[in-house]
Amino acid sequence: MIRRDFIKNGTLSALGISLVGTTETFGQLFTPSNKDTIGTAKNIIFLVSDGMSSGTLTMANLLSNRMYGRESRWISLYREKKAVRAFMDTASADSMVTDSAASSSAWGGGKRVNNGSLNVNADGSHNTPILQKFKNAGKKVGCVTTVPITHATPAGFCICNKSRNSQAEIALQYLPLQFDVMMGGGDKYFNPTKRSDKVDVYAKFEKASYQIAKTKAQMLSAKNQKPILGVFGNDALPFTIDQLHDKNHQELVPTLSEMTVKTIELMKDHPNGFVLQVEGGKVDWAAHSNDTSGLLFDQIAFDQAVEKAIEFAEKDKNTLVIVTTDHGNGNPGLFGEDNSDQKFDLFQKFKHSNEWILNEVKPNTSPASLIEMIQHGQGYAISNEQAKDLLSHYQKLDGGGLYNARKLPFELLGKIQSNYTSVYWGSMDHSADYVELAAYGPGSELMEPFVRNTELHNLMLNATGLKV
Amino acid sequence: MIRRDFIKNGTLSALGISLVGTTETFGQLFTPSNKDTIGTAKNIIFLVSDGMSSGTLTMANLLSNRMYGRESRWISLYREKKAVRAFMDTASADSMVTDSAASSSAWGGGKRVNNGSLNVNADGSHNTPILQKFKNAGKKVGCVTTVPITHATPAGFCICNKSRNSQAEIALQYLPLQFDVMMGGGDKYFNPTKRSDKVDVYAKFEKASYQIAKTKAQMLSAKNQKPILGVFGNDALPFTIDQLHDKNHQELVPTLSEMTVKTIELMKDHPNGFVLQVEGGKVDWAAHSNDTSGLLFDQIAFDQAVEKAIEFAEKDKNTLVIVTTDHGNGNPGLFGEDNSDQKFDLFQKFKHSNEWILNEVKPNTSPASLIEMIQHGQGYAISNEQAKDLLSHYQKLDGGGLYNARKLPFELLGKIQSNYTSVYWGSMDHSADYVELAAYGPGSELMEPFVRNTELHNLMLNATGLKV
Repeated sequence: MIRRDFIKNGTLSALGISLVGTTETFGQLFTPSNKDTIGTAKNIIFLVSDGMSSGTLTMANLLSNRMYGRESRWISLYREKKAVRAFMDTASADSMVTDSAASSSAWGGGKRVNNGSLNVNADGSHNTPILQKFKNAGKKVGCVTTVPITHATPAGFCICNKSRNSQAEIALQYLPLQFDVMMGGGDKYFNPTKRSDKVDVYAKFEKASYQIAKTKAQMLSAKNQKPILGVFGNDALPFTIDQLHDKNHQELVPTLSEMTVKTIELMKDHPNGFVLQVEGGKVDWAAHSNDTSGLLFDQIAFDQAVEKAIEFAEKDKNTLVIVTTDHGNGNPGLFGEDNSDQKFDLFQKFKHSNEWILNEVKPNTSPASLIEMIQHGQGYAISNEQAKDLLSHYQKLDGGGLYNARKLPFELLGKIQSNYTSVYWGSMDHSADYVELAAYGPGSELMEPFVRNTELHNLMLNATGLKV
Repeated sequence: MIRRDFIKNGTLSALGISLVGTTETFGQLFTPSNKDTIGTAKNIIFLVSDGMSSGTLTMANLLSNRMYGRESRWISLYREKKAVRAFMDTASADSMVTDSAASSSAWGGGKRVNNGSLNVNADGSHNTPILQKFKNAGKKVGCVTTVPITHATPAGFCICNKSRNSQAEIALQYLPLQFDVMMGGGDKYFNPTKRSDKVDVYAKFEKASYQIAKTKAQMLSAKNQKPILGVFGNDALPFTIDQLHDKNHQELVPTLSEMTVKTIELMKDHPNGFVLQVEGGKVDWAAHSNDTSGLLFDQIAFDQAVEKAIEFAEKDKNTLVIVTTDHGNGNPGLFGEDNSDQKFDLFQKFKHSNEWILNEVKPNTSPASLIEMIQHGQGYAISNEQAKDLLSHYQKLDGGGLYNARKLPFELLGKIQSNYTSVYWGSMDHSADYVELAAYGPGSELMEPFVRNTELHNLMLNATGLKV
């Protein structure tokens, strides 16, 4: 193993980095047979499909099979017997049902914190985020996501903050870290015209010698001599299903897979290796709004990032790839009823997410034009009464869902749509379900079949031979 | 391995039983490393929690932890690294969403059939059920379940019938098989006073030298010289949560775990080994009626049967134990909202299932007495309006759910209860979700990480060294 030779040669030690000297350090975590795997990974790619219930993984695979004739890379990793599987308990410090801040903190800081908190314990003490540890150890580190780069899941690997909601503050917290790649959405937290404090966070990053990318072309032309901040949308990036039918988005906004490939390219030649978090963040947002086409095509897009990560790791041979989710959300399923299969195939005709449809509605939109819009965008004809009902909800206070600033009637459209697709939801919020995890490559042997989310923290440190 | 010596000694061959001669027989199914495991299992215990979504497994474990201070045996098998895990695709021949007949047929007959069919293909041809194969090979075989013994899941291992609904006919189909143990509910399919054809099926079984058990005591006193038919209820057996609070049920009706222990005792000394299917059938029925306490306590009861099976297998060392489900159902989850944990803890105070409550309602039941009944049986106070609403549904045609002959308002009570427990449901029907599977013991090495349900048929034959 190249990595082990690298350790033996003392290169990291020469850099002042503590390495694991004895296996005793790890207590009972390791059996004799897997002690040998400590320190075998040079790089880690940690991929999170945020808020992915078991049914989401299944349905994305079914849709991919039926629409594109190929199964997901995640499932094929199992079929090819290349991955170690684990079942993960995702609870937070104060609930069996975690939020994304606490779950990313469990991985990122190695301790369970209360929901809403980023690596800050109930007593106010802080847990050092894992990318800070890896950065201090000389590795390149970074995060890419389809939601704001200041959002809970990347933030939990990067910083400490008692509230995940302090995204404008978190953008500034990233500045001194000098992490190598930070890309996603969230212009509203960086742009001086959008921040309440009018601070130009981009200018600060530029001053700190960052490259700034705001388009796919700018991202693709980035060089690896300087760190990069990439921000490709005001808030989250578009849903994949919408981007697939929008040339402007396709030209300007990179996909999660494109961000992943570029980041690996920027990091892969670093002599000390790299650690990268990749988040399919809008899988969770789609679940919060019971937006099934948003969900399934974003899960497929996430899987394309998995494919690229595995493709690199297969060649590289020194990269641990972890693929998982932070918690279930909504527990959607394709449920049995007359013609379930045919109904499910309707998704193949979808051009737009529910989010896109509902945002198209204007004060003067008539029931007839809403019917037409849904027929064109999603391939089914709702009734005049349903159209009226949807339009009437624009007058109401809330349409359900977490990321729903405009109070759109997500819940109602979700329920109407279910009758045409046979996909139904149990909730618009996270579930306590234990979740699926796959690990590939050196260090994957350390993965236990049933893990607490916190165990992944030490596992990543151990896989790379970094002292806890 | 005792089993392998047994095979080498030719004892089975002397009985005229075909054994696998060459590994070529199996084509590409086996890698060199696991060819060695063929024929290492003498016995198989196949445990099915029918209709168990991922959230059901999780929530039963959470409830067990919080109520009894111990995790489920299923999860501890993972934690102790004793089981091989697989993810299973449960589709039927005609739908991504299977029913229990097609899924049991996939395991039992090795081929996918259309929903509703038991080992009968679309062209009318039959697939030989696996327990017939094992019986013909000289093993003791049988099924125990908490639903009628003529129901889809046991039937799929035993017989061929173009319709799972022909349960009165299936009871007669069992007769010539001379299977060693058949136990569960279903008196209505055996009792001459309840059958439309007035046939006394019990008398026929007695004439065919069966012991008949209709109470727990009769079951416990059974001897292993004769086969046994045990029928402990008119239709399905009571929900565990109801039995826990009913002395009469406790005295007369054996639990799934008790049936499993007794069956193992009756079969374990057979020189050629045994194959047993154990079904927690009311997990599925509970899901079909969104009856969460019915579901969770029956899942825990199923897990106690798993525990007993593993306990035997650990001592025996020649027994393959497979623990799985045939499909998801309802995709329930403990979902995030204020005080989710405390709400979930309410289940610890439950004395009765929704089925029990709704069956207690009489034509003259007042809203006040229904409120009192739910307060006493489930520990929360519904409003007068909710009580009236529930009572009004007794006038309506259907209350949702599959096993709901009395058209009880299961759906409405489920929805009302969710507000108090934070457990919500996506549907009252099966889901297409890939499902969890654990395999323990000799032959478990044959289990692939991602399997079609049909693959389990040959796996069981191969694990015991029986020629396909």
